[in-house]
Amino acid sequence: MPEYFPKIKKIKFEGPDSKSPLAFKHYKAKQKVLGKTMEDHFRFAVSYWHTFKGQGMDPFGLPTMERIYNNSSDEMQVAEQTLDASFEFFTKLGVNFWCFHDADVCPEASTLSETNARLDKLAKQAKRLQDDTGVKLLWGTCNLFSNPRFMSGAATNPSPQVFAFAAAKVKKALEVTKYLGGEGYTFWGGREGYETLLNTNMGRELDHLAAFLHMAVDYKKEIKFKGQFYIEPKPKEPTKHQYDFDAASCYAFLQKYDLVDHLKLNIEANHATLAGHSLQHELEFCCANGILGSVDANRGDELLGWDTDQFPTNIYETTMAMYVILNNGGFTTGGLNFDAKVRRQSTDPADLFHAHIGAMDAFARGLKNAAKMIKEKRLSKIVKKRYAGWDSAFGQKIEKGKVGFKELEIYTLKHGEPKVNSGQQELLENIINDYI
Amino acid sequence: MPEYFPKIKKIKFEGPDSKSPLAFKHYKAKQKVLGKTMEDHFRFAVSYWHTFKGQGMDPFGLPTMERIYNNSSDEMQVAEQTLDASFEFFTKLGVNFWCFHDADVCPEASTLSETNARLDKLAKQAKRLQDDTGVKLLWGTCNLFSNPRFMSGAATNPSPQVFAFAAAKVKKALEVTKYLGGEGYTFWGGREGYETLLNTNMGRELDHLAAFLHMAVDYKKEIKFKGQFYIEPKPKEPTKHQYDFDAASCYAFLQKYDLVDHLKLNIEANHATLAGHSLQHELEFCCANGILGSVDANRGDELLGWDTDQFPTNIYETTMAMYVILNNGGFTTGGLNFDAKVRRQSTDPADLFHAHIGAMDAFARGLKNAAKMIKEKRLSKIVKKRYAGWDSAFGQKIEKGKVGFKELEIYTLKHGEPKVNSGQQELLENIINDYI
Amino acid sequence: MPEYFPKIKKIKFEGPDSKSPLAFKHYKAKQKVLGKTMEDHFRFAVSYWHTFKGQGMDPFGLPTMERIYNNSSDEMQVAEQTLDASFEFFTKLGVNFWCFHDADVCPEASTLSETNARLDKLAKQAKRLQDDTGVKLLWGTCNLFSNPRFMSGAATNPSPQVFAFAAAKVKKALEVTKYLGGEGYTFWGGREGYETLLNTNMGRELDHLAAFLHMAVDYKKEIKFKGQFYIEPKPKEPTKHQYDFDAASCYAFLQKYDLVDHLKLNIEANHATLAGHSLQHELEFCCANGILGSVDANRGDELLGWDTDQFPTNIYETTMAMYVILNNGGFTTGGLNFDAKVRRQSTDPADLFHAHIGAMDAFARGLKNAAKMIKEKRLSKIVKKRYAGWDSAFGQKIEKGKVGFKELEIYTLKHGEPKVNSGQQELLENIINDYI
Amino acid sequence: MPEYFPKIKKIKFEGPDSKSPLAFKHYKAKQKVLGKTMEDHFRFAVSYWHTFKGQGMDPFGLPTMERIYNNSSDEMQVAEQTLDASFEFFTKLGVNFWCFHDADVCPEASTLSETNARLDKLAKQAKRLQDDTGVKLLWGTCNLFSNPRFMSGAATNPSPQVFAFAAAKVKKALEVTKYLGGEGYTFWGGREGYETLLNTNMGRELDHLAAFLHMAVDYKKEIKFKGQFYIEPKPKEPTKHQYDFDAASCYAFLQKYDLVDHLKLNIEANHATLAGHSLQHELEFCCANGILGSVDANRGDELLGWDTDQFPTNIYETTMAMYVILNNGGFTTGGLNFDAKVRRQSTDPADLFHAHIGAMDAFARGLKNAAKMIKEKRLSKIVKKRYAGWDSAFGQKIEKGKVGFKELEIYTLKHGEPKVNSGQQELLENIINDYI
Repeated sequence: MPEYFPKIKKIKFEGPDSKSPLAFKHYKAKQKVLGKTMEDHFRFAVSYWHTFKGQGMDPFGLPTMERIYNNSSDEMQVAEQTLDASFEFFTKLGVNFWCFHDADVCPEASTLSETNARLDKLAKQAKRLQDDTGVKLLWGTCNLFSNPRFMSGAATNPSPQVFAFAAAKVKKALEVTKYLGGEGYTFWGGREGYETLLNTNMGRELDHLAAFLHMAVDYKKEIKFKGQFYIEPKPKEPTKHQYDFDAASCYAFLQKYDLVDHLKLNIEANHATLAGHSLQHELEFCCANGILGSVDANRGDELLGWDTDQFPTNIYETTMAMYVILNNGGFTTGGLNFDAKVRRQSTDPADLFHAHIGAMDAFARGLKNAAKMIKEKRLSKIVKKRYAGWDSAFGQKIEKGKVGFKELEIYTLKHGEPKVNSGQQELLENIINDYI
Repeated sequence: MPEYFPKIKKIKFEGPDSKSPLAFKHYKAKQKVLGKTMEDHFRFAVSYWHTFKGQGMDPFGLPTMERIYNNSSDEMQVAEQTLDASFEFFTKLGVNFWCFHDADVCPEASTLSETNARLDKLAKQAKRLQDDTGVKLLWGTCNLFSNPRFMSGAATNPSPQVFAFAAAKVKKALEVTKYLGGEGYTFWGGREGYETLLNTNMGRELDHLAAFLHMAVDYKKEIKFKGQFYIEPKPKEPTKHQYDFDAASCYAFLQKYDLVDHLKLNIEANHATLAGHSLQHELEFCCANGILGSVDANRGDELLGWDTDQFPTNIYETTMAMYVILNNGGFTTGGLNFDAKVRRQSTDPADLFHAHIGAMDAFARGLKNAAKMIKEKRLSKIVKKRYAGWDSAFGQKIEKGKVGFKELEIYTLKHGEPKVNSGQQELLENIINDYI
Repeated sequence: MPEYFPKIKKIKFEGPDSKSPLAFKHYKAKQKVLGKTMEDHFRFAVSYWHTFKGQGMDPFGLPTMERIYNNSSDEMQVAEQTLDASFEFFTKLGVNFWCFHDADVCPEASTLSETNARLDKLAKQAKRLQDDTGVKLLWGTCNLFSNPRFMSGAATNPSPQVFAFAAAKVKKALEVTKYLGGEGYTFWGGREGYETLLNTNMGRELDHLAAFLHMAVDYKKEIKFKGQFYIEPKPKEPTKHQYDFDAASCYAFLQKYDLVDHLKLNIEANHATLAGHSLQHELEFCCANGILGSVDANRGDELLGWDTDQFPTNIYETTMAMYVILNNGGFTTGGLNFDAKVRRQSTDPADLFHAHIGAMDAFARGLKNAAKMIKEKRLSKIVKKRYAGWDSAFGQKIEKGKVGFKELEIYTLKHGEPKVNSGQQELLENIINDYI
Repeated sequence: MPEYFPKIKKIKFEGPDSKSPLAFKHYKAKQKVLGKTMEDHFRFAVSYWHTFKGQGMDPFGLPTMERIYNNSSDEMQVAEQTLDASFEFFTKLGVNFWCFHDADVCPEASTLSETNARLDKLAKQAKRLQDDTGVKLLWGTCNLFSNPRFMSGAATNPSPQVFAFAAAKVKKALEVTKYLGGEGYTFWGGREGYETLLNTNMGRELDHLAAFLHMAVDYKKEIKFKGQFYIEPKPKEPTKHQYDFDAASCYAFLQKYDLVDHLKLNIEANHATLAGHSLQHELEFCCANGILGSVDANRGDELLGWDTDQFPTNIYETTMAMYVILNNGGFTTGGLNFDAKVRRQSTDPADLFHAHIGAMDAFARGLKNAAKMIKEKRLSKIVKKRYAGWDSAFGQKIEKGKVGFKELEIYTLKHGEPKVNSGQQELLENIINDYI
């Protein structure tokens, strides 16, 4: 097997004083933090689509990135080479998981059955590579948005034939994910939304989306796929408005259609900010409602209105994300998938490594910061104290439903104006800076 | 009783050729559209807070508007004069409903019992004015955000004493609303959210909010108040992040805490756009999920990031809003409340009339446009045709749950690539322009 | 010559009652408004890039639109067919102008000299088609953003070799524009900005951009090209931040580098809103500073953060745009170029016609509304009255610089608090609705 | 003199291991960095308006903060007490500068002459306090936006009488600033803009604004005030659109009206982001054009659309700001003014200290990081290398204007496709993290 990243050796931990751009300064896979190794905390995954299929195209420009594994006019040969290259990359980088869409790995043929045959072949290769390297599949997914047939949605398409086509694609993707031992499967409704309400029957489309997911749940049982299902919120782009707008929209939908037991959420940082929320908000919302599944670790640019999918490097964000995740008990089936792409001008293969190394180091710092915050309890003590009234007899009466408006009016008439305390936001922000 | 708007006579319908700024050009209360009078379609309400208590203050400037009824140093006299002035305004304008917060009508005294006594007195005056004029209360509400005691929220406050105080306030507001024959009661969670997640226990706060609403439901039953409860989404402002972010967030919350049967939504145009949605989206979302209650009719400025609460004058928006509302069967308990304020520089009392007249005319045009669209079916036929496949035998099999992934795969393998059709957005937009 | 839009006949004016989607309801080319024909007011142009080269691709999806003229594997044959098709389109639609980038018309070859030879050949064909149809070139331009060589900018590239390549491209594009009798030439700095300030020398890049434009000015003189130069503001996309952010940024740059006499602005509606301005603001800013040149007529979606380039159909916007343009004396060299694309789902060739017809009708309504507003002076009288103080002796003393702070303090101490008047915004908005 | 912050002692440097919330962990006034003391680098100033006049009011709520110095019904006594309290604060905090508006220090009386007399009295007190403490005035300014007379602008008011009133106010403010030895004077055009273009004559208003500033320049000469004039960009809020939108808008205006020699810019972080720019962008734009004057150090919340004026605590931002400022030679007359307010819930006087301490520490870290970056040159070397082509003979020919389009075409035809290099954004971002 040829080497596709010949200039890059296996990335090693060299510590914070290293000046090498191709070494970890903070991420040490086997180092234990709060009793668990870093690699087990993070369950880092590389996204096949951005890292191996992205070539720097944007709406105003052609691809900028040349990769050795694309040097063939035979698309299956490119597919096979790319798969080999990807496992070389995973191994050199030292991540334990990958994620992919069917269409990333497998070029679509002119009929579905041919495409499925191709996918089987490539899945076999992937299985062998997994076995050889120990790299595992965090989750699989199905691309239901690139092909023109899906231009008006997949499960929410005005045509039941397109719905059927999407069903057939997801069926196959589930089978392949199971075959590869995937620990999860993600639904991202890229075009499940609308361009204009003028031509849209929203209620009917939502019903169809729910029907589709119930079919997936049924088929999962049938084939005994044990992985976790995820749904991934994004407010817009490619469509004007997507039904899975944010975590709350997804949760409303899952409840209405009795799907809460079957899907958890895969939260993406950049999707959060496009919806007007911080990543931390979306994570806390999921934790508060018991629906956090996995995380697409990237970052957006809050001054831009589209999905920039940049690599996460902001230590504040990695710290607070890990703080919430650790307080929620950490990942079980999920992990941190780098749904991020190098910038269009970052044309060297080495840039792919810089990007992932920087992100992994940023999360390693975030984890250590969060662990220290948890141990020292400076933050949590202040929060606990702020809500202490609710742990008193009076607070507990309310929480336990033992009083109503009448009792509370009597209490208030008797006790008068309640005391209020400073929210101490600046102090808390200063404390966070002590950990950065 | 002195006249507070002496220069203004009762506003009359003069038709589209009138050049008078103090006449209706399109709104004719008793004119029937689709078998119902305009006034019954709209159920227009004036917002007491903006129209009678707003004086043009903003974060950078002092009040600019002088009103005769404020000319006293005795706050109860001001309150009484303002109430008189408001019913003069309602009557001259020709609206049938009003909406208010307790704190708009009644200046807070130093103790709750005194405040309640004041409120009783003013409610009596309001009742008499209602009886005299025939103007009714669309909904009442309680201000749980202006007083410093609520700086960290009301039902979601870290202190149970503040929760209790809020409970006492809402109890009283419900009683007064019932006394005034209010057809509804609205909960707007102005500070039910957070400034920073660093000091916030989101899950616990959400539990408290639900507990509060359940107490309200219980008390409503107890006092046999028949009005409809509404919850009003707003994403942010005054807080950084409010729990009732948008319609979907509210719906997720109502479902989780088993409150769907008890509260409908009061949708505000400007709150919709601040959350990244069009007004039409929020209305359609509510219709699709059976939770549309009432509408706060205003408009925002999409280039500004705060709640500008401008009067609705955009004919596109009034047309599409009425189209959705008519298709949903129209209002029952709800109506169109002008939660809107004249600009800070619009300092003349006449500007209050201009503003409401313009908005009512804009909705009258919207209603007539929407009625014509419904009669002519140009839009709905295109939409129906777009989804026709779902009415076919094949589509029905899916909708009725008679097929799953396996059957759909077989179908797809057999039939191959589905046909896709143009979404015709430009044509539809041109059709809309035929109605504007 | 084959017919490329065989189902479409020449679009005719049928008046407002027509239900035909392929007829003008308001636009009548030869109808005079304020003494000038509609076609002379608007100088409508079709954008070659969107209408003939756009195929519905987006960052998440493949092309959706199939066009007859693309049915060849020989790229020069496609180019020639497309050119023929475009003039068939212009003629059937009845527009008098077109606009293009070099790269739209001419597929790039492997060397510059070959590309230039191709361009010469296609320019010859275009010249012949122009002569045959009477359609003229509103402006030409050069694509300096799609090819990977321009990934880091053209005139602002860190490499002088890329700057040189861009210079050679623009030289040729100017020659071709002159050859085709172009009435203008536009510079749009698609990648003249930065992705990250970390690798950017802003001052040096701005100097280079100015040097480039001065070279263009010099070469224009040398070849005696008489067309007007335009610069087109856009704040971001494709880059994170573009130097020509908005009209004010462009004006600051043109002044600093002594280019004001040589370039006017080409204002695009969607670029305005992405920069946080209304279209009307950008137009008025240009008029106030004497730099309005031409207009890219489209519209954005203010709830989305990217350039949607939708066709302009909002009558409020076309009315106010025409009001400003008419008050500024109308277009001279410039015109209304439809820099707009049909939605990705609008896959029928007929949709291209619907889109342009709707936009032209929207501008026809806007023009008629604006002309009526100008004749009736309801708006302008109010504005004139609002500033009347400045026409008084006192106001004129200030405007003519005859008084300073000392005199104004004396005046103020003597006269005391000035009277202020209502801004009457709601009244003015109602008046606008009388014209919609 | 009573003590107004009796619980707070002088804030000391205790180093990074201190757990005291009322000590500096990083800011050590006399510590030298790159040959200059920290205090001389920063020239920190406290904003009188937020810190002493802000009481937590917001558009939805009443004041929340009680301060001892407000405990009087005599407004002049409050003013005097507040002034005393402020110098106690400056001294305990250890900042060397303050900034104020006339209206912050001095309550407006019923006539201008009375107000001026009050201001003289308070200025005398301030002078004495300055002399006693050594605290100096970084810049003064005049509030031309709070009083209703300025509701439609000051220099851009439709009434010349209001213009005159504003002139009289600024005249006095300049005199007081001079009297107090102010090192600068800032113009912030809070209402110099518009609410609606419908009632606005933009060109005339801009002319008036320029006339006003020229009068100020003349008067400055007359009274021999040596301080620097600043103009401060802000895009919107309180008005819909402000003429001083961003640094580029200001620069366009200053050039057009021949004011560049007389005013520099005072850049505010939160105003930058509201205009769609990063703080670093605005600083670099000013440096590239030689117009950087001073900085209002705060931060916004990019997910909110209004001016939150939070204290700057983000180490990334303080690092990059100081990097740009140091590379530009540091401050001369300007400095870092904390135009920031504690959150509405931060009701304790101690919170004012926490906020300033956190910000000063954040800048101290930023300065040390930036100094290290400058010394180590890791970033600047990469940037220099990126532009190296421009330092070659070929690049220099272009920069020196020795070649034009023809020569560059010949060069390009000869040399063919230029080599392009990776922009290395991810690597650069990783390097920044090495300093955080």
